[in-house]
Amino acid sequence: MRTLDWSACGIRLIDQNRLPDEELFLMVREVDELVAHIQSLAVRGAMALGVAGALGMALAAVRAKERGEDLDAALDEAATKLSNSRPTAVNLSIGVENVARARREGAGVAELVEVALAMRDADIEANLAIGLRGAELLRGARRILTHCNAGALAGVEHGTALSVVMALQREQPLDVVYVCETRPLLQGVRLTAWELARGGVEHRVIVDAAAAGLMLGGEVDAVVVGADRIAANGDVANKVGSLSHALAAHRAGIPFVVAAPEDTIDAGTASGADIPIEYRSESEVLTFEGREIGPPKSKALNPAFDVTPADLVTAVVTQRRTILPATDQVAPALPHPDTTGVCPSTP
Amino acid sequence: MRTLDWSACGIRLIDQNRLPDEELFLMVREVDELVAHIQSLAVRGAMALGVAGALGMALAAVRAKERGEDLDAALDEAATKLSNSRPTAVNLSIGVENVARARREGAGVAELVEVALAMRDADIEANLAIGLRGAELLRGARRILTHCNAGALAGVEHGTALSVVMALQREQPLDVVYVCETRPLLQGVRLTAWELARGGVEHRVIVDAAAAGLMLGGEVDAVVVGADRIAANGDVANKVGSLSHALAAHRAGIPFVVAAPEDTIDAGTASGADIPIEYRSESEVLTFEGREIGPPKSKALNPAFDVTPADLVTAVVTQRRTILPATDQVAPALPHPDTTGVCPSTP
Repeated sequence: MRTLDWSACGIRLIDQNRLPDEELFLMVREVDELVAHIQSLAVRGAMALGVAGALGMALAAVRAKERGEDLDAALDEAATKLSNSRPTAVNLSIGVENVARARREGAGVAELVEVALAMRDADIEANLAIGLRGAELLRGARRILTHCNAGALAGVEHGTALSVVMALQREQPLDVVYVCETRPLLQGVRLTAWELARGGVEHRVIVDAAAAGLMLGGEVDAVVVGADRIAANGDVANKVGSLSHALAAHRAGIPFVVAAPEDTIDAGTASGADIPIEYRSESEVLTFEGREIGPPKSKALNPAFDVTPADLVTAVVTQRRTILPATDQVAPALPHPDTTGVCPSTP
Repeated sequence: MRTLDWSACGIRLIDQNRLPDEELFLMVREVDELVAHIQSLAVRGAMALGVAGALGMALAAVRAKERGEDLDAALDEAATKLSNSRPTAVNLSIGVENVARARREGAGVAELVEVALAMRDADIEANLAIGLRGAELLRGARRILTHCNAGALAGVEHGTALSVVMALQREQPLDVVYVCETRPLLQGVRLTAWELARGGVEHRVIVDAAAAGLMLGGEVDAVVVGADRIAANGDVANKVGSLSHALAAHRAGIPFVVAAPEDTIDAGTASGADIPIEYRSESEVLTFEGREIGPPKSKALNPAFDVTPADLVTAVVTQRRTILPATDQVAPALPHPDTTGVCPSTP
């Protein structure tokens, strides 16, 4: 399922906030709309945000041309708005910068759109490759635990962690995928469970806090999650809760595998201590669909990510290699072999 | 705050189902009303249920006398109804049996009431002692993390983990208590946050999955939780999620302290592997106030407890001692020194 795409009218994306109740595609015609959708998490996930950033820049270019506005000024404004819409999401800035650089190198509007579309296509190919590589690593694992949504809804078509799950499922139907609900925004139960149900994969939703007991109780063969950023030393920033699962997997002696594209590896970030953690609104914790859960005067703290130290990461699976952070060099990311415009974090 | 008490009119208890929206005390005049409140979870928590069982028997005795009914028949009927109201709550039966035994030994109505009140007072004293002992152990800790509700609402007046928190707070106002919301039933944000707000304790609600990141990030000085059962080897069964916090505390090098009355220690249970884990309804995970969260066909798995291995437990603090499971003998529980009728699990 292609969750994010380019069309003659603009950017077409599935509204993840409506899932699982409703499968609604939005047509985004202006950059400001895209920024609003990114902030509301209608589109989310590292790779999807990367492609969304690039497509957003392409959209800005197309609209500037239509309106006879200055192209460079329009791109500068769009770049600032898009990059600032989710500060922790490095891929968003990468997507933006891909198009911005092409412009600096003299590309016109049509070429800028091509750069964005090349990024979309590279994302789809990379996700498929990540799934196959991860399935090779985890061959024989029949009970998988995952967190948040690192599926088609987090990318353009296959996702990362769920691309591994689907590749394993194609080899032999899995016994069960444990889907952590992923508080506060419930991407696991809303999105991952929806994708797995749609794909016919046997699964059980659990509260995030139940994962450790299942792992130590011998009910899980492997944990597979995505990543928002991987530091040069192999520390992994991902959705809050991933660290707990890594600690439990380590104690249980099962693999904790991070599935992510090469350009999630950020050579400019030495370690997890250098990754800024995004703190989101208290209301995500304290309300449910507008209804207050807690006492009126209680406050919340709402970190959206946590950092898993490299020594707890069994492997990082990318489209190009399987990295064992304990022994392998993680950064720099490998350059894409066949394209130049899609991986700006490498020369 | 005394959440459960005896008065001239009957049993006075706070309706926990109304919290945190409304602070409503119920006056319970008949055993059948008490049974209904126990079944609706208006009163809950192991210690509170033990005292409620005893007070319910006292209420049955008082009403039988007022109405000129047969005392033994009335007590037999009340004992059956109360014990069956939550069949797995062992403390409820213990409270009922305390009063029933006193009657078999010849006690009259006034003495039966005294037995129930002695149990109430012993619970209050024990909880206060647990708090003081825990605060002594954790002197200097200003940032505490707790899970679920082990407060006055789970006991009669002070609770266990929150008794430690309140004792620390009395010495010097705490910087912050991190309250894990405790999915799926949200006892943390509904009950613990309410108790802390009422007690003027600075606190922040977090999703359960955020705890590990805060601990490894150096934001927490100690974790304090209650216990549902402690095995002879020091393994601790408590609300699902406690294990994750213990793993993170271990990695972060901060104390993970279990606060519980002596009779939570069950010499008849050799290790955590012998503790049956209660699996509760899928709908607790998949719905919120009647509204479906996930896709219609997705299923859930809902373990209510998990087991923390003894080597991750820094200390168990009871009303009588501070046990270091790594080196100390945990079971058997120490008998109460000054009462006979209040601790039926020990000779």
